[in-house]
Amino acid sequence: MNIQNIAGGVCAAKGFTASGVHAGIKAGSAKADLAMILCDTVCSAAAVYTQNKVKGAPIFVTQRNTADGTARGILCNSGNANTCNPDGMEVAQACCELAAKATGLAPGDFVLASTGVIGQALALAPFERGVPELVKKLSKEGGKDAARAIMTTDTSVKEFAVEFDLGGSTCRLGAIGKGSGMINPNMATMLVFLTTDAAIKPTLLQRALSDVASVTLNQICVDGDTSTNDMAAILASGLAGNACIEEPGEGYEAFCDALHNVCTKMSRALAADGEGATKLLECKVTNARTAAIAHAVAKTVIASDLFKAAMFGADANWGRALCAIGYTPGDFSAEHVSLVLKSGAGQVLVCEESAHAPYSEEEASRILAENEIEVLIDMHDGVESGVAWGCDLTYDYVKINGDYRS
Amino acid sequence: MNIQNIAGGVCAAKGFTASGVHAGIKAGSAKADLAMILCDTVCSAAAVYTQNKVKGAPIFVTQRNTADGTARGILCNSGNANTCNPDGMEVAQACCELAAKATGLAPGDFVLASTGVIGQALALAPFERGVPELVKKLSKEGGKDAARAIMTTDTSVKEFAVEFDLGGSTCRLGAIGKGSGMINPNMATMLVFLTTDAAIKPTLLQRALSDVASVTLNQICVDGDTSTNDMAAILASGLAGNACIEEPGEGYEAFCDALHNVCTKMSRALAADGEGATKLLECKVTNARTAAIAHAVAKTVIASDLFKAAMFGADANWGRALCAIGYTPGDFSAEHVSLVLKSGAGQVLVCEESAHAPYSEEEASRILAENEIEVLIDMHDGVESGVAWGCDLTYDYVKINGDYRS
Repeated sequence: MNIQNIAGGVCAAKGFTASGVHAGIKAGSAKADLAMILCDTVCSAAAVYTQNKVKGAPIFVTQRNTADGTARGILCNSGNANTCNPDGMEVAQACCELAAKATGLAPGDFVLASTGVIGQALALAPFERGVPELVKKLSKEGGKDAARAIMTTDTSVKEFAVEFDLGGSTCRLGAIGKGSGMINPNMATMLVFLTTDAAIKPTLLQRALSDVASVTLNQICVDGDTSTNDMAAILASGLAGNACIEEPGEGYEAFCDALHNVCTKMSRALAADGEGATKLLECKVTNARTAAIAHAVAKTVIASDLFKAAMFGADANWGRALCAIGYTPGDFSAEHVSLVLKSGAGQVLVCEESAHAPYSEEEASRILAENEIEVLIDMHDGVESGVAWGCDLTYDYVKINGDYRS
Repeated sequence: MNIQNIAGGVCAAKGFTASGVHAGIKAGSAKADLAMILCDTVCSAAAVYTQNKVKGAPIFVTQRNTADGTARGILCNSGNANTCNPDGMEVAQACCELAAKATGLAPGDFVLASTGVIGQALALAPFERGVPELVKKLSKEGGKDAARAIMTTDTSVKEFAVEFDLGGSTCRLGAIGKGSGMINPNMATMLVFLTTDAAIKPTLLQRALSDVASVTLNQICVDGDTSTNDMAAILASGLAGNACIEEPGEGYEAFCDALHNVCTKMSRALAADGEGATKLLECKVTNARTAAIAHAVAKTVIASDLFKAAMFGADANWGRALCAIGYTPGDFSAEHVSLVLKSGAGQVLVCEESAHAPYSEEEASRILAENEIEVLIDMHDGVESGVAWGCDLTYDYVKINGDYRS
């Protein structure tokens, strides 16, 4: 399997253009807040959504618009989540109509997403001005502008693309995404938009996205709060020329590998840019009883406030990781756990057989002073593995989320 | 129902004495770290424990020692959790033997508890010196010393006692407790020791403690981390002279009311003194579909890092509470929620029908500037209710836990 990194982000795949503009949704700011991704042709479309019972209006609109397994484009605003608003559905529908009018397509051709403050009415005026401008600016070079326009408190633009082979045809798969960062945070909505020119049937596209998201994007945790507006959506233009993937098999696996590759990079980038974060934490669990337990243990450890705070303090407090392993739901043994802390500065075994292993605190502190930390947990309880990504808990997380509006 | 607050804490009930000393378990500190509670007579005993798969050695020892439904005393150290230590069980047993030798009782007469660092060997020497001193100091006035000796990062002593009537006999029920970090008890260590002179059969005592703890102590959350050493234990001396409670009925209900009263006060005190906390959050959920959902919603809201940080910043960011309600597991509707923020400075309706209610931000900030905040959530989805207690997320939480061991 040969997956190559390439430039171009969400516009790398054949058929896609993108743009981003400042429409005025983020009041009192000149930042970009409206993005569009458009395809020259009808795409297979699939999406996964927040499992929060309180859902933003765009979630319902997107579910309806992609129910037939196809879409042409994506419209996304930042600055307002359009959630818990009595007129949210009407406004969301009106946004799709504005996109349709400006592109000559139908309102039902669009994936719609919003991120920002909950419970404040979303005005249509910025869309009336912004959407036509957005369409005018669509280009193959617009991926980064789109990536920037969906950011809220993010501090870095997140875009990735890869090239891979599908039965002799070169395919591309790219993505933009946003997580959390700083300024007017209300919700750390995670949004990831993916594009590919691989030809793939909508049902298989949905299955690939659901499967890959469950072990990548769903394994990120910044603060344990599941947003009302989370969404990952993928459009597949089919312009790469590969034989359309219509059933599981070699081609489907190759596509999933490329999707997994991009979603893993995106997950790491989203976790590393968690609100206030100074360190990326990658927890790899091996030899667990089941894959589900491996993933759950990994996510529970990197979600523990106590462990996150210890990582901020470069403190090899492995007891907090053991404690988190112990309260992970599921039927498994936590009696033979070993734990290694690893970074660019080296690695150290701090726990063996669920008890203290002799190590140098100085060496451990030196390893934990780096900004990418691997937490390697061997359960000695089976053969399955799983990964999760998080970040440290810092003063800045409290500042960002406590100083809101002051 | 007549429940009166009285002084005396864990020594208020007839038959109980207590003491606390500095035995040297907390290295480099002169703080008290060893406590004993002893009864003149054999007590009915009951306890609830952490549900963490990784359990401290004292948990297993106490389960064994109280398996017959009786005990005579409680020995508890702070500074070291005696958890994840290969020799933990031997050390725990030796602690009970030291207590037996100094009191003339049997090792199996003792409830044993430990709280502190995980994964560091617990030396016996401090117990060899401290336990005899502890026994010498036992007195009716020693409750506060015992309460102080079980503290870790707690900033306040927690003790309560009440007097109540059982069929003409005046009974007393008192408690000491400690909390602070790693607090999401699921029966950090959260430790609560209760004493009463009511006569009650061990099986009913266990049932009362389990039922009351599930709606009081288990509804506290400081940081979502369920400790390996949580324990709430109760000893009933039977010296009050009441007809022994041997079956459910009026007497049992009166006893449960008193237990609920003390455990509620203790829960509030533990939450208010959460690590780094500046505010007590009390979330009351009404009109939920089931009592379990009401309790789960209340606990999820006060456990949300984002909501906790907003409370620290006195920001009426109700969208974060709605978001937390929405990701609470369970089958219920979050479509008609109303939310009131209340404190000594007044109250304000901030959300109605799961949408923004018009309110003054200035008034809300004034209300949230107080140090006890009530979050009143009406689900409009049934008739059941539930309460949970938490605290705000502050810079000091990060500071305390980023630097715990150094």
